[in-house]
Amino acid sequence: MIKTIFWKNNTVVLIDQNALPLVEQCVTCKSYKEVISCIKDLTVRGAPAIGVAAAMGAALGAFHLPSLSPEKFRQKFFDICNEIAQARPTARNLFWALERMKKVVAQQNEVNQKRLVKELIAEAKRICTEDIEINRLMGKNGSSLFADGDNILTHCNAGALATAGYGTALGVIRAAKEQGKKLHVYVDETRPVLQGARLTAWELKKERIPYTLITDNMAGFLMQQGRIDRIIVGADRITANGDTANKIGTYALAVLAKEHRIPFYVAAPLSTIDISLKTGKSIPIEERKSNEVTHFKRVQSAPAGAKVYNPAFDITPARLITTIITEKGILRKPYQTSIARLHQGGKR
Amino acid sequence: MIKTIFWKNNTVVLIDQNALPLVEQCVTCKSYKEVISCIKDLTVRGAPAIGVAAAMGAALGAFHLPSLSPEKFRQKFFDICNEIAQARPTARNLFWALERMKKVVAQQNEVNQKRLVKELIAEAKRICTEDIEINRLMGKNGSSLFADGDNILTHCNAGALATAGYGTALGVIRAAKEQGKKLHVYVDETRPVLQGARLTAWELKKERIPYTLITDNMAGFLMQQGRIDRIIVGADRITANGDTANKIGTYALAVLAKEHRIPFYVAAPLSTIDISLKTGKSIPIEERKSNEVTHFKRVQSAPAGAKVYNPAFDITPARLITTIITEKGILRKPYQTSIARLHQGGKR
Repeated sequence: MIKTIFWKNNTVVLIDQNALPLVEQCVTCKSYKEVISCIKDLTVRGAPAIGVAAAMGAALGAFHLPSLSPEKFRQKFFDICNEIAQARPTARNLFWALERMKKVVAQQNEVNQKRLVKELIAEAKRICTEDIEINRLMGKNGSSLFADGDNILTHCNAGALATAGYGTALGVIRAAKEQGKKLHVYVDETRPVLQGARLTAWELKKERIPYTLITDNMAGFLMQQGRIDRIIVGADRITANGDTANKIGTYALAVLAKEHRIPFYVAAPLSTIDISLKTGKSIPIEERKSNEVTHFKRVQSAPAGAKVYNPAFDITPARLITTIITEKGILRKPYQTSIARLHQGGKR
Repeated sequence: MIKTIFWKNNTVVLIDQNALPLVEQCVTCKSYKEVISCIKDLTVRGAPAIGVAAAMGAALGAFHLPSLSPEKFRQKFFDICNEIAQARPTARNLFWALERMKKVVAQQNEVNQKRLVKELIAEAKRICTEDIEINRLMGKNGSSLFADGDNILTHCNAGALATAGYGTALGVIRAAKEQGKKLHVYVDETRPVLQGARLTAWELKKERIPYTLITDNMAGFLMQQGRIDRIIVGADRITANGDTANKIGTYALAVLAKEHRIPFYVAAPLSTIDISLKTGKSIPIEERKSNEVTHFKRVQSAPAGAKVYNPAFDITPARLITTIITEKGILRKPYQTSIARLHQGGKR
């Protein structure tokens, strides 16, 4: 099984997702600042994986703090969490994981700093292992939606690499395969960072699930030809009404799915749902550097000085989403109601 | 003015479109076989430019034929034309231009081979200069559709580089600019070959028309935000009912335009219209090599052995096209009627 991220000898070890698929290597972070860098430069990406990385980063930060008074420790630890929270703005799981870490400190009566740090490391590891369990449950819940012989389209990477392991959208595909269903996956390359071509294709190849790589602008033509049975994607943040932020290009796929009456599924853990936001309009959309668009690796494709717009995510309105697959079951419209019900039952 | 292709000292000179935007250089073809290679490898691309290249290639082939009997010359020349016609399957203009060249030989009573070759060279040059005139007329006709301050989205390159000069879709944008209208253009990078990022951005930069480069999958999000007023694209082949083959990704844009009630224009000369085909279902769609998708220049992005689907074009059904802009005026629905009327008047 692909292990995206793990804690080892008081370091955080990450698969280097910028080096894939050509080189399989790991990056070892010895400080929380290095974890922040890895989140920013996409060494680790994908909402649930960012959450796990953030938790482990916070634990690492706590581990390296000098001996402090309980009050001072708490303050320093919160500062570290707030600094990690600045790494990227869109994925809900980043903030969710840091909230869980802060709670350990806020709710603990423990005054022994060493024991408290131990608790924080344990909590980060729990977030990691729970994420894999959650993905397996999501897979089980979602796989019933797939039929033997289906052609599935997916966008970006919502696989093992986007999580602690197993994956959200790809987790559902994995689960369907484990149930003996034969599936074929069309993989959007997902410009500009090519998470589909580099990461999803790599995972499917490893898993021996048949796939075909396409450029993002081919998906509509495939739908027109009747070659896509279902679409499944992950999510970076889902608001109380079901609006979903996900990798740029997701919205266009959802519109195309509607035009062709193709079911459009979102697979995401409860930790991606942000009940504090009413609609997708309030989700901050990260804009990234222009060289992601003007260059591939070191090869320049656009004229020097080209002006670029590079939003990393877009918002798919709830009305275009057929179901949201979670570890607690499959949500249906109106999401306002189904999310509220689930959230009340799913609170930690 | 950008001269995409010209006849010089019995050679065909082409701007090397694979080298743009980083290097501005020309390729000189000394034989029709070299012209075929340049069409195949996209040194020259864009339906009207392919037409001009084919005509000049045929003239070059005729020029290098040994002295033959009129019958033998005619047969050899037709063989050359048929060989050039194999270069690419989708663009109508390739076949249209070769038909015009064949007619020169078929209809001539000239038995002096030298004079006949001179006629062929003259006809190829005429196709080239006429193409620029046609584009200027198209620009004039289409520019009335644009308002001052519009944000225009375009896909691929339907500019000077896709024609003998001035361009089809970009020609309309140029004409609107010449009329003093201030426009801003969103440029789809247009994977896999990046004609938008490499060629359209280069042309707009040269022309000092403000533009912003985006990846193809961002267009839908821009439309959702109300940031696109109009969409204009070129065409590779238009059938009798108005169905339009154009660069892969065009169909998805047309569906998104419908969803957002954004006018969707196609700009193309009559030579792109194939009255012999009733609907777009009959247009042959070229599939190109997988390395266009798995690699960027020499940089590999997908796992080794990745299976790829790489159609170079898609078909936009007539119902999604607001108007078709031609040199003879603006066509409206039903295109069945407006195309038939125009074609009867526009026959050469």
